[in-house]
Amino acid sequence: MITDVRQLEALPRQESLRLLGTASLGRVVFTHFALPAIRPVNHIVEGDKIIIRTHLGATIASAVDGTGTVVAYEADMIDPDDHLGWSVIVVGRAHLLADPAEITRYQQALRPWVSGDMDEVIVITADMVDGFRLTRG
Amino acid sequence: MITDVRQLEALPRQESLRLLGTASLGRVVFTHFALPAIRPVNHIVEGDKIIIRTHLGATIASAVDGTGTVVAYEADMIDPDDHLGWSVIVVGRAHLLADPAEITRYQQALRPWVSGDMDEVIVITADMVDGFRLTRG
Repeated sequence: MITDVRQLEALPRQESLRLLGTASLGRVVFTHFALPAIRPVNHIVEGDKIIIRTHLGATIASAVDGTGTVVAYEADMIDPDDHLGWSVIVVGRAHLLADPAEITRYQQALRPWVSGDMDEVIVITADMVDGFRLTRG
Repeated sequence: MITDVRQLEALPRQESLRLLGTASLGRVVFTHFALPAIRPVNHIVEGDKIIIRTHLGATIASAVDGTGTVVAYEADMIDPDDHLGWSVIVVGRAHLLADPAEITRYQQALRPWVSGDMDEVIVITADMVDGFRLTRG
């Protein structure tokens, strides 16, 4: 139990995306039937792209049509004991990947942690990137 | 690096809320200017209520008007190495607490991890609770 609070230090975009890439698990945030929805999922980061795989026909896939849908993606590593760490929030357009060769490549590079059909690959292009570090100040 | 995948086991509502109470940090999910938004925040759970504090005038507080706004709240504890753990997602109506005595009580019980004005207390009433455990199957 600590009593002193942490300061928030904003991080540059590139450092934020780098940190996001060091985490293997994040949470995709979207709207489902006009309600806020969130699902934990593992990811890989390539440049300003976040790649995830979901259950075929799952909520997020059905929300991401061909024209793209704006989603948020979040990952953090904040120590529950000393409250130090970081958090990165990305907002951007999500697309279902359609190219078979690219789908195959990501299906090999990104292994889902949970069982089930994960035939769809979703690519989120980081438009807004908002990262911060919790420091002792 | 593990190669076998995890099974998803749905958890009962009460067990999900109990697990949520064992985590100190979660993420509140809401809509901000028609975009999906997410913020990490620490919380306490009392029965089917999740209590959080935010920056005065912060996005989430301004989105939660007197009549209540539907938000999602998520916490998870998933081991990045063995991929075992749990995740709980709550969807429910969020209210700004107005009663001064209750505000004082929660301001003492719930200490924000980061510095800043945190005068507003938000109570999320768990309507839908969706918890699952990742097991070896």
